[in-house]
Amino acid sequence: MDFLTAELLAKTGLFQGISSLQILKLFSDLPVTRHNHTKGSIIAFQGDDYTHLIMLVKGKVSAAIQDYSGKTLRVETLEAPVPLASGILFAENPTLPVTITALTEVRTITFSRKTLMVLFSRNDKVLYNFMEDMGNKIVLLADKIALFRFKTLKQKVCGYLLSLEERQRVDSIYLPYNKEVLAELFGVARPSLSRILAELEEQGFIISEGRTVHLMNKPGLREQILKD
Amino acid sequence: MDFLTAELLAKTGLFQGISSLQILKLFSDLPVTRHNHTKGSIIAFQGDDYTHLIMLVKGKVSAAIQDYSGKTLRVETLEAPVPLASGILFAENPTLPVTITALTEVRTITFSRKTLMVLFSRNDKVLYNFMEDMGNKIVLLADKIALFRFKTLKQKVCGYLLSLEERQRVDSIYLPYNKEVLAELFGVARPSLSRILAELEEQGFIISEGRTVHLMNKPGLREQILKD
Repeated sequence: MDFLTAELLAKTGLFQGISSLQILKLFSDLPVTRHNHTKGSIIAFQGDDYTHLIMLVKGKVSAAIQDYSGKTLRVETLEAPVPLASGILFAENPTLPVTITALTEVRTITFSRKTLMVLFSRNDKVLYNFMEDMGNKIVLLADKIALFRFKTLKQKVCGYLLSLEERQRVDSIYLPYNKEVLAELFGVARPSLSRILAELEEQGFIISEGRTVHLMNKPGLREQILKD
Repeated sequence: MDFLTAELLAKTGLFQGISSLQILKLFSDLPVTRHNHTKGSIIAFQGDDYTHLIMLVKGKVSAAIQDYSGKTLRVETLEAPVPLASGILFAENPTLPVTITALTEVRTITFSRKTLMVLFSRNDKVLYNFMEDMGNKIVLLADKIALFRFKTLKQKVCGYLLSLEERQRVDSIYLPYNKEVLAELFGVARPSLSRILAELEEQGFIISEGRTVHLMNKPGLREQILKD
């Protein structure tokens, strides 16, 4: 691995708190595959066995989910440096849930689960970062499922704010995600989420200060949920 | 830790492939807390910080999710030996998503994330088991979310079978879960799921052989999804 790649990896969550030099050393005797992909080429197909972690180290890709009929259900854009589909890597029958296409010139490095296990044994921090990422993904997915019981976006937001209050046991809650992840959680675009939050603020239910939200009228928030 | 506890732990997924004797040795110098809980007592509350893994080693508990108004949304029964909420343990702000109540006399042993990290460094298999479990949970939750786009249970089942075919790229698919987990995936009771599968079989769409399902009429399955 070259120093530039190590520097890029150092910027990913997986290697947070680990210097580029340490990364170089960690990988020194481990097998890693490097690939360059031209713009428009497909890097991996939905349904592929996924037992090697693909790290996107340069460029942008799209990750698209198609249903059985070939209809595209969802597309996400991912920008380097970032690991791809790390959450499912250790599942029993890991198959890639998305088709990954290069949107620009792309460079990837790929290594096996076995190599990752060696990295874990060599550095506690890599292991902890990986576990934390998996744990966060599980919480996010479980939160998303819990929100399906609400009908409208406004009800989802009110229900989520109240559930955070329940969890954090304070009147001024802290949003665990930035707006982008929150929008994903609610399954909407960012502006739609911002609009609802502004509306709740206008109606005097909340006051937002960055990621802190003061709940000013909890009975009011509860009523919103019951509205048709 | 006593030998009986080690024997019970050996039966959990986390220690799969590891003998009771090895478990005793692994834990020999590690801090572990043991608790006995009387029937009806609350073991942990929804919203509690969850930075120590609770292993249920004897008895049965209920795990109940309540919403902001105190209404119970879902109750699950768990039987020893089993770890509780292991998926969220390493999340950034892990709060227990359920209230855990002893349904019988219950014994638990509890140890910290730090202890678990030491176990990981001592035994690759424990680490791999933990990672596999997290990976499986992520796949299950993502599958569950994907099914929300279907309206009826029959549409969900048809859509899921077709998505497995897409993933496994064969006409005879293998169900990755037993009926109990499948029912949970679809958010229904087991008999309801069995009824739908029997119906699809009667209609000639599928033939089931244990966990193998032969798709006999894919266009027919697709049509089911489009029906109102």
